[in-house]
Amino acid sequence: MIGEEPSKIRVREADERAFIVHALTALNVSEDDARDVADVLVAADLRGVESHGIARLDTFYCRRIEGGVVSARPRYAVLCDRPTQYALDAGNGLGHPAGKHAMAATIAKAREHGVAFATVRNSNHYGIAAYYAMMALEHDMIGLSMTNSTHLAVPTFGRQKTQGTNPIAVAIPANGRPPFVLDMATTGVTFGRLEVSDRKGKALKPGWAVGPDGSETLDPALAMTQGALLPLGGYGTEGGGHKGYGLGALVEILCGVLSGGAFGTALRLDERGLHGGTVGHFFGAFKVGALRDVGGFGADLERELRGFEDSAPVPGAERVMTAGEPERLNTERFRREGVPIDPKVWETIDGLADRLGIPKLERFEIS
Amino acid sequence: MIGEEPSKIRVREADERAFIVHALTALNVSEDDARDVADVLVAADLRGVESHGIARLDTFYCRRIEGGVVSARPRYAVLCDRPTQYALDAGNGLGHPAGKHAMAATIAKAREHGVAFATVRNSNHYGIAAYYAMMALEHDMIGLSMTNSTHLAVPTFGRQKTQGTNPIAVAIPANGRPPFVLDMATTGVTFGRLEVSDRKGKALKPGWAVGPDGSETLDPALAMTQGALLPLGGYGTEGGGHKGYGLGALVEILCGVLSGGAFGTALRLDERGLHGGTVGHFFGAFKVGALRDVGGFGADLERELRGFEDSAPVPGAERVMTAGEPERLNTERFRREGVPIDPKVWETIDGLADRLGIPKLERFEIS
Repeated sequence: MIGEEPSKIRVREADERAFIVHALTALNVSEDDARDVADVLVAADLRGVESHGIARLDTFYCRRIEGGVVSARPRYAVLCDRPTQYALDAGNGLGHPAGKHAMAATIAKAREHGVAFATVRNSNHYGIAAYYAMMALEHDMIGLSMTNSTHLAVPTFGRQKTQGTNPIAVAIPANGRPPFVLDMATTGVTFGRLEVSDRKGKALKPGWAVGPDGSETLDPALAMTQGALLPLGGYGTEGGGHKGYGLGALVEILCGVLSGGAFGTALRLDERGLHGGTVGHFFGAFKVGALRDVGGFGADLERELRGFEDSAPVPGAERVMTAGEPERLNTERFRREGVPIDPKVWETIDGLADRLGIPKLERFEIS
Repeated sequence: MIGEEPSKIRVREADERAFIVHALTALNVSEDDARDVADVLVAADLRGVESHGIARLDTFYCRRIEGGVVSARPRYAVLCDRPTQYALDAGNGLGHPAGKHAMAATIAKAREHGVAFATVRNSNHYGIAAYYAMMALEHDMIGLSMTNSTHLAVPTFGRQKTQGTNPIAVAIPANGRPPFVLDMATTGVTFGRLEVSDRKGKALKPGWAVGPDGSETLDPALAMTQGALLPLGGYGTEGGGHKGYGLGALVEILCGVLSGGAFGTALRLDERGLHGGTVGHFFGAFKVGALRDVGGFGADLERELRGFEDSAPVPGAERVMTAGEPERLNTERFRREGVPIDPKVWETIDGLADRLGIPKLERFEIS
């Protein structure tokens, strides 16, 4: 890959975390809330999900607070607090503290009652969905996390954007061995994939995007400026595109409609630009021990996952992986080698430090 | 389509139901259990999901009972019965009565506690997943239903079959207007789609299937005899095939591992053929009223679904549909015009009546 991508800058995990806290507290975000954001963004970078890490600190969080789109000091309102349900109005605050708060409440309820779920409305972009689902793991629970997002994708046989990338994450503890962690956008690819193709001057793959009339396009620039993403499964119904569309709609119904929050046209970007508080989340926690002994479940799940991992790969592939494995391998490596930051992202971080008058993020040089 | 498919035979819904009950009770299935099977199979045929209706009565249910693979008079064992959890061992009986029983228990618990879920192990093929999810609708609950199945699909970059078509169904009530009903295999297509292509001498579409070495094939005969299905999203990771693979694995973990039932190699077909009791199910019910007023939710969901349905279609498409709509339109039509039965399926039904010595299913002639 040398020559294709400029080499990454490396930073220490603790330094990255401290920088994010500095930036956000400089904008009047509370220390606790800033730490929540840092936890989620650093986890994304460690997992190799660069698009959802510090790369978004400036544009998605700092600038939106500075522009008055997102509230730095939100007032939460608990809309419902029953033994197995929790509903939060996040007061147009940052999505990460709201998400962590609601998932923690869900876990506490599930500890007592075996299962619980929560909705959050009037929130904002919460980073990687997996983070919240994975909070359940140390409690021997299965965690579920979903979020709606600004509309970027067409429905099957449609040409207007009706839903976002609307990810679903599920984390399942395997009692000692690495967990099963599925975190998937319900579109075939994310918008970032179109940007990468455009930057490299490469054509898109079939099933990724459509042009302005809703028919498939392989032109990244056209897709980005006048087109839209396709649901997982691609165009039409032949490859199962209606399934990705259905999953995406399900996420918006649970996060937007069931939460009593924004949905439909309220999530469309228009000439007025982005509105704060249009994002909602849905969380769930299921206690494994409510149904089976945790040890027996963990041992069986280990056998199940090994069954995939030990199965024969196609010629040319090293082996078969299970959900969450590539991200776990990244985390182990980046903890040793430092968290990689793209040079372009580095520039935005550098500029952010100047703008906010905070200490610059230091490079980590492997000795 | 005239000339492509032979015209269907039509039957009355009540006649189809009675025939199924006759056939199963002739094989010592209890009247109650036989009625449960009939409910699910007739619902499938009414919804236009022919592959899961009476077409399977002979091969999937009657012959398996006659062959001793499935128990006609199973003994259920309740493994767990807590306020929000239920776990059933179905005693290697038919999947439909076990599924209805477990979903009914889930709904009763959710009525009291807002949410509940259930696992079923040692069960068999339960028909369409949507049936059980839809049981929640009349109770103003969101219903969830999943089942694992005999292995037919490869994992991403693998060439051994590690999972079935493993469907997920979610039904959401919309307070008066037709509900949202998503019912999707986690493979791109089902095995039946390969059979149809083979019968018509048509090539498969990319993303549907692989040959014996795990690389993609468009040859239906090769895929059926020596190959496997691909996960939703197709081959590799470019179109999101790892997402379909992850969803399929999730279904097997919840239905097979969490239930304490069969998973992994136990679900592989081998020279010993099919084993009974290897299928497990997972059910959930969420009371809408535990989080929001049912009327407000229904009105908002109606607006949300209209947003999709009223959005602009691609050139050549009549309009955009929402999940469950094609099946609902089929049901309305087939209730008027009679339930369509494929002539080949009709032959197996006719033969079944002869074999069991029960009254033949009558054709419905529209006057």
